[in-house]
Amino acid sequence: MDRTEISTLGEFGLIKHLTEKLNFQQPSTVVGVGDDAAVMNFDGSRVLMTTDLLLEGIHFNLEYVPLKHLGYKAAVVNFSDIYAMNGTPTQITVGLGISSRFSVEDMEQLYSGIRLACERYGVDLVGGDTCASVNGLTIAITCLGKAAPEDIVYRNGAKVNDLICVTGNLGTAYMGLQLLERERIAQRGNSSGEQIAAFEGREYLLERQLKPEARRDIIARLREAGIHPTAMMDISDGLSSEIKHICQLSGVGCAIYEDKIPIDFKAAELAEEMNLNIVTCALNGGEDYELLFTCDINDYEKLIPIEDVYLVGHITKPEYGTLLIGRNGEELSLQAQGWQAFDNEIKL
Amino acid sequence: MDRTEISTLGEFGLIKHLTEKLNFQQPSTVVGVGDDAAVMNFDGSRVLMTTDLLLEGIHFNLEYVPLKHLGYKAAVVNFSDIYAMNGTPTQITVGLGISSRFSVEDMEQLYSGIRLACERYGVDLVGGDTCASVNGLTIAITCLGKAAPEDIVYRNGAKVNDLICVTGNLGTAYMGLQLLERERIAQRGNSSGEQIAAFEGREYLLERQLKPEARRDIIARLREAGIHPTAMMDISDGLSSEIKHICQLSGVGCAIYEDKIPIDFKAAELAEEMNLNIVTCALNGGEDYELLFTCDINDYEKLIPIEDVYLVGHITKPEYGTLLIGRNGEELSLQAQGWQAFDNEIKL
Repeated sequence: MDRTEISTLGEFGLIKHLTEKLNFQQPSTVVGVGDDAAVMNFDGSRVLMTTDLLLEGIHFNLEYVPLKHLGYKAAVVNFSDIYAMNGTPTQITVGLGISSRFSVEDMEQLYSGIRLACERYGVDLVGGDTCASVNGLTIAITCLGKAAPEDIVYRNGAKVNDLICVTGNLGTAYMGLQLLERERIAQRGNSSGEQIAAFEGREYLLERQLKPEARRDIIARLREAGIHPTAMMDISDGLSSEIKHICQLSGVGCAIYEDKIPIDFKAAELAEEMNLNIVTCALNGGEDYELLFTCDINDYEKLIPIEDVYLVGHITKPEYGTLLIGRNGEELSLQAQGWQAFDNEIKL
Repeated sequence: MDRTEISTLGEFGLIKHLTEKLNFQQPSTVVGVGDDAAVMNFDGSRVLMTTDLLLEGIHFNLEYVPLKHLGYKAAVVNFSDIYAMNGTPTQITVGLGISSRFSVEDMEQLYSGIRLACERYGVDLVGGDTCASVNGLTIAITCLGKAAPEDIVYRNGAKVNDLICVTGNLGTAYMGLQLLERERIAQRGNSSGEQIAAFEGREYLLERQLKPEARRDIIARLREAGIHPTAMMDISDGLSSEIKHICQLSGVGCAIYEDKIPIDFKAAELAEEMNLNIVTCALNGGEDYELLFTCDINDYEKLIPIEDVYLVGHITKPEYGTLLIGRNGEELSLQAQGWQAFDNEIKL
């Protein structure tokens, strides 16, 4: 039999390859693979469903990620997918594969993080599957949510001249990861266990990496302001990759202005220290879990007063492509390096 | 910090420990952890949700499990959980962690099995998450289902004098596994790749292990016959373990008659050949995915004509305990050795 390496397709390519030509038999299925969450219609209001698999050595490194934080993050990233559909997360199930390296106390820590996230976001933990693993820790979380049919926002609704907005700041979680990685490498051969002058004053970067929050607040503020985004998704793989998804699915192009991308000062400072280009980090660094959305240009006045929402560009005709407009007006084609787990593996 | 080994609690003990004191905040949550599936109420009809995590080296061995069969089974065991609530499976999401050992063609095989199961059972594949893993293959499937509120059958509804029934036959999947394991060990050092006289005439045992079916047919027949089970679950860990769950949750005891337990002839034959007690295999062997249910004694007449349903005992007052009545009338306490993944790990 032929052997095609998965790395030749990448994560998105593989998913697309495996899930094309899927037929639906259930009248309750509204939308399947391809958005932040699937959409079902059970007698009226819509049920949303999303799933995430987190694997030790790929998605997290327990050398510097406390188990409680890991549990919190594993739950929150799923909530983020439901908010990105303009829905409300309601229930999760948790699948855990645990090697004998872990103790009951370790699992209590992990669960305490999951429970804390559930409490904060008003989500119920309703089921799961716990089993042994040969190696490492596996966390599989599936989240249900709900939304009124008319509220749901998909990735494919962006229209020419729509405004492109992002929330918070970008690249910060990535810089948090760089900080942790640098420290981990510095600690090699250091048996004193001491540290960590380098973290001082940079707690925010660590928090963005270790304990991200889902932007429930923005979803609420957009609703209050009467803004219904035309397209939306959460930024887990970097702005470049995500806006290209929206453009492709919506059949449009975009112009993103480099100088409009919100950057955290401390993140920029660290990037300079580490000889990294912070804009590249903001465009391609993963795990910010901020929201990317488009909305009608007539919503401009309503949009401006909303705190922590930033206008970064606009939707163009498809023939213009997906562009990054540099500080001097130069036009660059947006590169979706993304944060692809398969690329990541190749580096391991 | 104290370190308590997970093996001291076991899988059920750990789940219980981690999920006790969970509070629900969502009005849509009806039932959480502790049954075959969680139950939600989204505007009327009930939504069911169950999840299963399958890990290479723990739940399956790719030396003898073809990837297509594995995909089929991974989906079907989730459907089985939904049928065990007297519901209909409707949608699944699939999480895959894949090491570089696997090719695109391998994943096509796995997915073709998942898709075949979905087609046969009328279930839609609506989402997923695919990523690299450091080692081995991880499959996390979550299944949604639906049911009318009055149709759902829980584990805690068994009443004194209820009849105890099982479907199909028990211990057969376990004997299929023994056959595969024996062959695997025999093949060590055999480079010819040839085989397999020992499988001839025993295809049914292999099929029960490699490609189990969920008992959708029985659920339909019970409905046609007007029988509403008082308690039900699927038999994934062995009859002993499962009936003890029902008894504990229902606050009752039981008497199971050894000579009523349905045994497949070929399974019994192989057990004898391998010096195994087939009744022990039927009571404690896992993965049969048959149904165990209790129903009112007045349903007896309606029950008898239903093909492939076997009366194996009755529910007693709790003070009698959970008993196995031997062929000579002797009373033994049912031992729930179960098929616990954590015990399994210790053996690895």
